[in-house]
Amino acid sequence: MNTPKERFEQQLYFLREVEKMKSILRMTILADGSKRRENDAEHSWHFALMAMIFYEYADSDHVDLNHVIRMALVHDLVEVYAGDTYAYDTKGYEDKLERETAAADKLFSLLPNGQGDDLRALWEEFEAMETPDALYAGAIDRLQPLLNNIYTEGYTWNPNHVTSAQVYARMEPVKTAMPKMWDYVKAMIEGCIEKGFLTR
Amino acid sequence: MNTPKERFEQQLYFLREVEKMKSILRMTILADGSKRRENDAEHSWHFALMAMIFYEYADSDHVDLNHVIRMALVHDLVEVYAGDTYAYDTKGYEDKLERETAAADKLFSLLPNGQGDDLRALWEEFEAMETPDALYAGAIDRLQPLLNNIYTEGYTWNPNHVTSAQVYARMEPVKTAMPKMWDYVKAMIEGCIEKGFLTR
Repeated sequence: MNTPKERFEQQLYFLREVEKMKSILRMTILADGSKRRENDAEHSWHFALMAMIFYEYADSDHVDLNHVIRMALVHDLVEVYAGDTYAYDTKGYEDKLERETAAADKLFSLLPNGQGDDLRALWEEFEAMETPDALYAGAIDRLQPLLNNIYTEGYTWNPNHVTSAQVYARMEPVKTAMPKMWDYVKAMIEGCIEKGFLTR
Repeated sequence: MNTPKERFEQQLYFLREVEKMKSILRMTILADGSKRRENDAEHSWHFALMAMIFYEYADSDHVDLNHVIRMALVHDLVEVYAGDTYAYDTKGYEDKLERETAAADKLFSLLPNGQGDDLRALWEEFEAMETPDALYAGAIDRLQPLLNNIYTEGYTWNPNHVTSAQVYARMEPVKTAMPKMWDYVKAMIEGCIEKGFLTR
């Protein structure tokens, strides 16, 4: 049993450790022309805010937005130890689960009992992408970098030879979780194909 | 009355505009030794997560954590037009409200009716710091950069000649909103004074 002070110090240490999210770079670049790659902390904030703004397109009878927002805040935490895996990196995905599970064991055990379990449960729910909340969260997590790719003329698609079939497969959760939005998103993807930003 | 597509496009534009949060630099630097200044998006994410982790120190009978988390996500949005004002910049604070109100008028009107009002209400509640939710949010918003200043040996205090009296005044909401944590925080501030990172 920890003393209250030890408990506080564990929480402090955890919060300092996850600050590394600010230095975990994703493939996605900002849409402002700077070509700077965004990091996990920035992405997580944008994802959470986007979930708020686009909630009306979700199945609001079954999606708890507050729970989704919490998922957004913690969904990438394991990357402070496991690193970011690019969405279209087939090889990286082979051992992604293994690497991230080991990272989760290490990271969430930094917190006092119970608190680490709660955060881990959010991450596991997000990863499994089975509940309505996780499906909506997964949709937003994929939509955010898609939009930046559209705004930057397929900046991360081209050098990686990503095809429209891969993008459509990746965006399947958007179609499922936000059917009312899908036509708009599909039109934007098709626009990228027409303009040559994305290989058909 | 907007068409559904126009509504979606307004939301898209807003989300792209607030991405500028990723480029609004704060005075605070990261705790990792890089001396890189954090930006508003990173800070907002860290603030929201910190609110989750430290909720047990708040007056949980009166503080709605979900509402606080939403406040964290939007509390700095106006800075995409108004810029960041350093906590100890007395001159900058003179017209902070005026600059930020003009920014709010511009920013929140980008969203469809209703949605912009909801976000603006969160920001206004945060700024007024009167409700228990806003007081807890304000406490975490001030605690996050305090911790980074402690970890970086008062990096932003020294060049700005910040005194311990100023820091204590700034941390008043921490004392009020999280009395159970205050002794720990106070001991850390006193430690900074003893080590010469902060002027008594």
